[in-house]
Amino acid sequence: MDRVLRLFWEHRKGEKNPVKTECMSGPDKLHEECGVFGIYNFDKSNIVPLMPFGLTALQHRGQESCGIAVSHNREVAYYKDTGLVSDVLTPNVILGLSGEMAIGHVRYSTTGGTGRENAQPIVSKYKKGTLSIVHNGNLSNGAKLRDELENAGAVFHTTGDSELIAFLIARERLHCGSVEEAVKRALPYVQGSYSLLVMSPQKLLAARDPNGFRPLCLGKKENAYVFASESCALDAVGAEFIRDIEPGEIIAVTEEGFRVVKKGEGTAHHCIFEYIYFARPDSVLDGISVIAAREKAGRLLARQHPVEADLVIGVPESGIDAAMGYSLESGIPYGRGFIKNSYVGRTFIKPSQNDRDLGVRLKINPLREIISGKRLVVVDDSIVRGTTCARTIRMLKNAGAKEVHMRVAAPPFLWPCYFGTDIPDREHLTAVKHTIDEIRAEIGADTLGYLDLNSLHELVGSKEYCHGCFSGAYPVRVENGNGSER
Amino acid sequence: MDRVLRLFWEHRKGEKNPVKTECMSGPDKLHEECGVFGIYNFDKSNIVPLMPFGLTALQHRGQESCGIAVSHNREVAYYKDTGLVSDVLTPNVILGLSGEMAIGHVRYSTTGGTGRENAQPIVSKYKKGTLSIVHNGNLSNGAKLRDELENAGAVFHTTGDSELIAFLIARERLHCGSVEEAVKRALPYVQGSYSLLVMSPQKLLAARDPNGFRPLCLGKKENAYVFASESCALDAVGAEFIRDIEPGEIIAVTEEGFRVVKKGEGTAHHCIFEYIYFARPDSVLDGISVIAAREKAGRLLARQHPVEADLVIGVPESGIDAAMGYSLESGIPYGRGFIKNSYVGRTFIKPSQNDRDLGVRLKINPLREIISGKRLVVVDDSIVRGTTCARTIRMLKNAGAKEVHMRVAAPPFLWPCYFGTDIPDREHLTAVKHTIDEIRAEIGADTLGYLDLNSLHELVGSKEYCHGCFSGAYPVRVENGNGSER
Amino acid sequence: MDRVLRLFWEHRKGEKNPVKTECMSGPDKLHEECGVFGIYNFDKSNIVPLMPFGLTALQHRGQESCGIAVSHNREVAYYKDTGLVSDVLTPNVILGLSGEMAIGHVRYSTTGGTGRENAQPIVSKYKKGTLSIVHNGNLSNGAKLRDELENAGAVFHTTGDSELIAFLIARERLHCGSVEEAVKRALPYVQGSYSLLVMSPQKLLAARDPNGFRPLCLGKKENAYVFASESCALDAVGAEFIRDIEPGEIIAVTEEGFRVVKKGEGTAHHCIFEYIYFARPDSVLDGISVIAAREKAGRLLARQHPVEADLVIGVPESGIDAAMGYSLESGIPYGRGFIKNSYVGRTFIKPSQNDRDLGVRLKINPLREIISGKRLVVVDDSIVRGTTCARTIRMLKNAGAKEVHMRVAAPPFLWPCYFGTDIPDREHLTAVKHTIDEIRAEIGADTLGYLDLNSLHELVGSKEYCHGCFSGAYPVRVENGNGSER
Amino acid sequence: MDRVLRLFWEHRKGEKNPVKTECMSGPDKLHEECGVFGIYNFDKSNIVPLMPFGLTALQHRGQESCGIAVSHNREVAYYKDTGLVSDVLTPNVILGLSGEMAIGHVRYSTTGGTGRENAQPIVSKYKKGTLSIVHNGNLSNGAKLRDELENAGAVFHTTGDSELIAFLIARERLHCGSVEEAVKRALPYVQGSYSLLVMSPQKLLAARDPNGFRPLCLGKKENAYVFASESCALDAVGAEFIRDIEPGEIIAVTEEGFRVVKKGEGTAHHCIFEYIYFARPDSVLDGISVIAAREKAGRLLARQHPVEADLVIGVPESGIDAAMGYSLESGIPYGRGFIKNSYVGRTFIKPSQNDRDLGVRLKINPLREIISGKRLVVVDDSIVRGTTCARTIRMLKNAGAKEVHMRVAAPPFLWPCYFGTDIPDREHLTAVKHTIDEIRAEIGADTLGYLDLNSLHELVGSKEYCHGCFSGAYPVRVENGNGSER
Repeated sequence: MDRVLRLFWEHRKGEKNPVKTECMSGPDKLHEECGVFGIYNFDKSNIVPLMPFGLTALQHRGQESCGIAVSHNREVAYYKDTGLVSDVLTPNVILGLSGEMAIGHVRYSTTGGTGRENAQPIVSKYKKGTLSIVHNGNLSNGAKLRDELENAGAVFHTTGDSELIAFLIARERLHCGSVEEAVKRALPYVQGSYSLLVMSPQKLLAARDPNGFRPLCLGKKENAYVFASESCALDAVGAEFIRDIEPGEIIAVTEEGFRVVKKGEGTAHHCIFEYIYFARPDSVLDGISVIAAREKAGRLLARQHPVEADLVIGVPESGIDAAMGYSLESGIPYGRGFIKNSYVGRTFIKPSQNDRDLGVRLKINPLREIISGKRLVVVDDSIVRGTTCARTIRMLKNAGAKEVHMRVAAPPFLWPCYFGTDIPDREHLTAVKHTIDEIRAEIGADTLGYLDLNSLHELVGSKEYCHGCFSGAYPVRVENGNGSER
Repeated sequence: MDRVLRLFWEHRKGEKNPVKTECMSGPDKLHEECGVFGIYNFDKSNIVPLMPFGLTALQHRGQESCGIAVSHNREVAYYKDTGLVSDVLTPNVILGLSGEMAIGHVRYSTTGGTGRENAQPIVSKYKKGTLSIVHNGNLSNGAKLRDELENAGAVFHTTGDSELIAFLIARERLHCGSVEEAVKRALPYVQGSYSLLVMSPQKLLAARDPNGFRPLCLGKKENAYVFASESCALDAVGAEFIRDIEPGEIIAVTEEGFRVVKKGEGTAHHCIFEYIYFARPDSVLDGISVIAAREKAGRLLARQHPVEADLVIGVPESGIDAAMGYSLESGIPYGRGFIKNSYVGRTFIKPSQNDRDLGVRLKINPLREIISGKRLVVVDDSIVRGTTCARTIRMLKNAGAKEVHMRVAAPPFLWPCYFGTDIPDREHLTAVKHTIDEIRAEIGADTLGYLDLNSLHELVGSKEYCHGCFSGAYPVRVENGNGSER
Repeated sequence: MDRVLRLFWEHRKGEKNPVKTECMSGPDKLHEECGVFGIYNFDKSNIVPLMPFGLTALQHRGQESCGIAVSHNREVAYYKDTGLVSDVLTPNVILGLSGEMAIGHVRYSTTGGTGRENAQPIVSKYKKGTLSIVHNGNLSNGAKLRDELENAGAVFHTTGDSELIAFLIARERLHCGSVEEAVKRALPYVQGSYSLLVMSPQKLLAARDPNGFRPLCLGKKENAYVFASESCALDAVGAEFIRDIEPGEIIAVTEEGFRVVKKGEGTAHHCIFEYIYFARPDSVLDGISVIAAREKAGRLLARQHPVEADLVIGVPESGIDAAMGYSLESGIPYGRGFIKNSYVGRTFIKPSQNDRDLGVRLKINPLREIISGKRLVVVDDSIVRGTTCARTIRMLKNAGAKEVHMRVAAPPFLWPCYFGTDIPDREHLTAVKHTIDEIRAEIGADTLGYLDLNSLHELVGSKEYCHGCFSGAYPVRVENGNGSER
Repeated sequence: MDRVLRLFWEHRKGEKNPVKTECMSGPDKLHEECGVFGIYNFDKSNIVPLMPFGLTALQHRGQESCGIAVSHNREVAYYKDTGLVSDVLTPNVILGLSGEMAIGHVRYSTTGGTGRENAQPIVSKYKKGTLSIVHNGNLSNGAKLRDELENAGAVFHTTGDSELIAFLIARERLHCGSVEEAVKRALPYVQGSYSLLVMSPQKLLAARDPNGFRPLCLGKKENAYVFASESCALDAVGAEFIRDIEPGEIIAVTEEGFRVVKKGEGTAHHCIFEYIYFARPDSVLDGISVIAAREKAGRLLARQHPVEADLVIGVPESGIDAAMGYSLESGIPYGRGFIKNSYVGRTFIKPSQNDRDLGVRLKINPLREIISGKRLVVVDDSIVRGTTCARTIRMLKNAGAKEVHMRVAAPPFLWPCYFGTDIPDREHLTAVKHTIDEIRAEIGADTLGYLDLNSLHELVGSKEYCHGCFSGAYPVRVENGNGSER
């Protein structure tokens, strides 16, 4: 299920009687940090109108804020705010900007009132001009690095990692001849995950961490190079997919053309959860089709956790493809179990205390006609806290389902992620505290089956991948000043 | 496909160089006029927070404007504006209103700048107080009626039928003892389709035209009666479905309770296109499940237009269920052919002349992985002008589809609708001007099959239905002052 | 003092703990109902950009809502909303409209949430097309008329008089050959005050009631005729003043040119309070300069209520000119007593219970330097409830004034106005309940003097005028269905 | 005249046909950089609602953007945006913040699209927590300092001086024990003008440069200390004036109370133009009443440039008090020459090329009644380019003035200001290029008299002051990296 509900009490300051609202996306689902998108047009014609297309295609990677920075004749302008791409990058904003080079960002954020300031791109003024940066990922040495830099006198405006990277690049640029060189010198200081676009007034650079945790790919549209977190954004602007940026690689596009500043190196450890949940099914990441990986997960589930049932359904949106895989492998027919309402806004006033499932039911309504009286296999991508899963199963049973056999297209979450996935504290992870049968009982399922950790590699063929959140085994050592290192 | 793209030139006055924008919903798709929703709470507790839930569940019936009128201790307040429910009925607006009775409306509209004034509810002041009305449907004698009333001195503020109905009710109310009686006396003057909620300061009335063209149902939630265009809106507020309002029936809910003011009569002629396209699959209208009707349409198509193929896909959203029916009947596997992006906003600046398919591709992107190299059966709900269908097929072929066999879950559109469906002028209907093979060639399909007009009744069992837009045979005589009568 | 403060408790529904706000305009000051402005351009070039200029110049006559209706090639478009002209008629709105004819309105309103619907222009659809109307005034037979029309079946959308006038014109138009004739036939039905602009798709009409209560004048700018409530709006668009519309006169501007449809008749009874308070000092109304009338009032006050003092100051804005008159007549020096802050917005959160004068002090701050240790003559235009006056005097004394001699440039308010001035109920008029010495004590003044009722005529030379709110003697019989007739 | 008009062509990118608008404030008037306001409440009750009162009272010092930073239990939140205080710090924003300590800012800015980012407070994260700063003034060594800091690796987010100061304080804080000490150590690095409020999570500091160029004063309201650029802001929140911050002084308010961190030192050189134009007449700055200084300027003008005339008028707003001084000294009667419209918004669409004076006339309309046929002495605060003055005189003559004797309450502008006044380049200063008689001819005056440079000191008694913009003699050496030093 792609975005679920959160019930929260918005205690407006200065009021004794808080208004209870329902926010239509929430903590019972994992969150990616961002999506990035950039264009360099050799034509010098205005490519700003393409930015909302590319960023809207990446909107599933972050819905809290977005922004673009644009360069026209070496002058940089930018616009960012909290809200969806369609709310922020309105026709008026797009008409007010012009440029032959641009980078953009969509962001998921936990911060409240200061969201606007933490939005990206980060645009910095330094000795050599203006540096704009968009970043997807998380620095595992971010806290330590910030500490060191602040000890050396650095002052920051945001609490994010991206400003650290910008600072390092600016620092190096003082001592070397080009921004390409500066990026090359700066990146060894940072550890963790980063898929990065850097725009100086005349150059566009792309870089990916040596593990290649987060995706980043390159496309071409007429005389323009296009970079995007996922290939679906290339489709959205009509660009042709060229290739993925290699782990550890740095690329520069300048007046002189396309150049590999630093060759890819190191062993890729792609985040397996990109395939299971984050990415769009129509994207191909590092050569692996997302929808194929999901269908494969469903097939594996069918083999690992067979059950006698009448119908396989998927929890929209990300459970659907795995459900179809389960159906194909098991021979149990696939059917639509829910109707998803795509018009649901961000916040509703909660009608009353009793209506605890209203928000979920507004977002996904069970198809009584299809499921009533049936023994169901229900496939979802993952279980975090378990509360949403419990609501979903309760709705299905209320709608007449005879049995609900829950199948989860991922292993249980047990460990934190240091590379950009916003996993709750361990105390909130249901699988940390409970046995699988306890979870089954709590969510109200008749049976429950998770994908086997040892079969995960089948999703991505022979590729290496990071499975730290399931296994606790990370591909790199984690040094995090705020004590969350293990 | 539920909402398609329109390319238009927004010629801003006073500018010689118009900005070209892409609007993400448009004329190549049929439009319903409205959805209605109302609540009467015997508890006297505030039910206003439920209104956004109910109306969001009906948002697919109209996205141009929305509004609610609320009654609290006989005082009526209202709020309406252009925009989606989530944009208009914000938490601030909902917190600012309170009432134990309310009616609401979502609207599709073709009018431009004056949309706000044409939004519903229509709230009128007259001799007996305030009358609020929401209306789904279209009066086939609207123009004639307006003419007669204006000749008699009536002055209107909108160009819509709903104000005519409000005027007639107010007129009758002067000569009779209750608003119930006034509604009963007024409705015989109007012909055509109406599913109507009328709110006087103390009473809530519901009425449906004698043909029952447009749906309207009744539910109950604790001590409140709930009326809604579709049952999915009852689900959304946690109300239990009671029954459909009968064609010709008038119901009043007052302090004394629920009362049938006028019994249902006449023969129902439900709009068949509600099942094919307008309604949500999880709704049950007049005893017929929408998803079942669509699956049935798909099965009929498989029988009427069999073809050898590798995969059946549906054009999201409304082609999907028929596609699954086709798959079940034919044995050809069903697969997801497109990913739909639900974050697409209303308007984009068109990047350039060459990018003609950008908007469609942003909204629905073909799943290359799934369709490449395959012979496809593609099911959509209908073809109006044919341009969107052509774009869709072009995208599929560009994505590697070997063959595209188009199957349409409705007969060809040939005639206007006088009962609330916004069908373009006949000159724009591709089926009026072309043979089926010409259409096939124009849209670029390998084969093309429409649902047989004579099999339509199988979708709705033994029920009567209106098929005027396909057959030209209407269940009632049409008198329309603006000359479109046949 | 032009607009004063109101403290009110905004009890937001659904909350037990209301937020206390300060609204920066309020009930302790009288309010005019409106200002009107219209242009007919023979050139057929777009005159819409002039509308914000004209209406901003009339903004002092109403700050609650505003709007314009525009006609271009017989097509009428309109835009209206709550807010100041600068908030509503933004560059985007003005660029989106075009026309060679337009009417506009600024409005003061007591209604709350439905303000947008009550805003003007009123645009009606009827047998003969579209009728747009803006109106300044009040019908003394409005309630009776509404009653009669509603009994005859009329349905209204607003609670205002303007819609009644529009209805009557539309009704007459059915039985006569032109809109000019219809206006001529309709106006005898209404009594009270009206300065009216009526726009049919091709004609612009102006009309004024037979008493000429409210002002209305005519100007010319190149090939365009311009109508405005006050001459200052002609200045603002660069139009030359031609003449005032005569009481009882109806004028039409059409393709054939300027025509007097009905000659002026009856005896003028201009509202004397327009000169004292409502109008702008730089306007000339019916041949009388407003600033001259105010200076005259000040001179009369000096003669009628002389006092020994050091300095004469005026309460901004409308007390200033009378204060200068008092100074000139008495020989006591004039000085600035207050600084007015013109940036004050509409609403502030009230900091705490104790800060009762914060809002007044933000709006007008006493000039301690000027007034400290002085015996002051303080001139204001009028006293309604007395509370604001008390605050003002308290501020002056706190700032060091030794004595405060209050002089009021009008007689005491004792009676209601039926012609467009929003005077509070008699129970709230301090002069109804108290002797002058009691008022003096309550407001904290050392002496208090009102302008003598019998000298009022000196303000306007030999002209007739209405002094009903001071004397209770109205120039016309008042028939008001809601019982307030005397 | 306080804010005048600018005509500019807003060339919206991507459009060939620009829309011509009139912006109602502009380059023909000098601009201050800012106003600051802060509160520290020992009570720990919420003082955020006071902030809009204080900042609205300082709105005349900057209308482009504003913002506040608030500290509650060591947690800092902030909100800033472009717009007036009433547009930005709305009731919703104020209700959403709470704190016992706050600083705020109003800003005039020349920057365009990035205004929001350059708005203050500047809120920085560094080693020791969060540092918020608001600043009125200009660093004369700003460019050099930025250069040095950037060479040492500093990265900035804005182009303003305030971020430099924040950086220096943060840098020093790393090497000393308290923020008080850090401010004390940091300020010697900066030269120029600064009236500064610094908020750490638990402390509020105020500092003023050793010349005391820009004003800053201290007040008390119950248990709270209040700092403000001008005393009128103390009045606006009901605080009592305590004293001015001394030049060179640093003050800290902490849990332990009020403490002078560094004693005042150096010789004050207050900006004389604060008295002539920037400050509000009801403010007392460094012991000198603004209105008294202006009246004095008028008296001096009367002595230095006597003339035979019928009436003295002032150009609103800042010319009025000098005009009254001229009148008192000369014996020529004072009168209101203009009505100022305080409802004028920011931007109007320019109606046509011919209407060159429309905007001015909308803002200030001559009182024909008063001035017609008269020989006028017209007093304004200053002449910059001369264009607005020419328009004003043209309006007066068109309104019937027989003679216009222009008197300017300041000497001619000849030199740049390095301390916070935004004086145009010398090539735009009319007095640089022309003799006084040439200027007289160009603006269309009959006679023209400036205030004598040598008499300026009489405005401020025996105080020292900065007259660099008139004399070219600055109280400190100016080192400005961008080459504007003389």
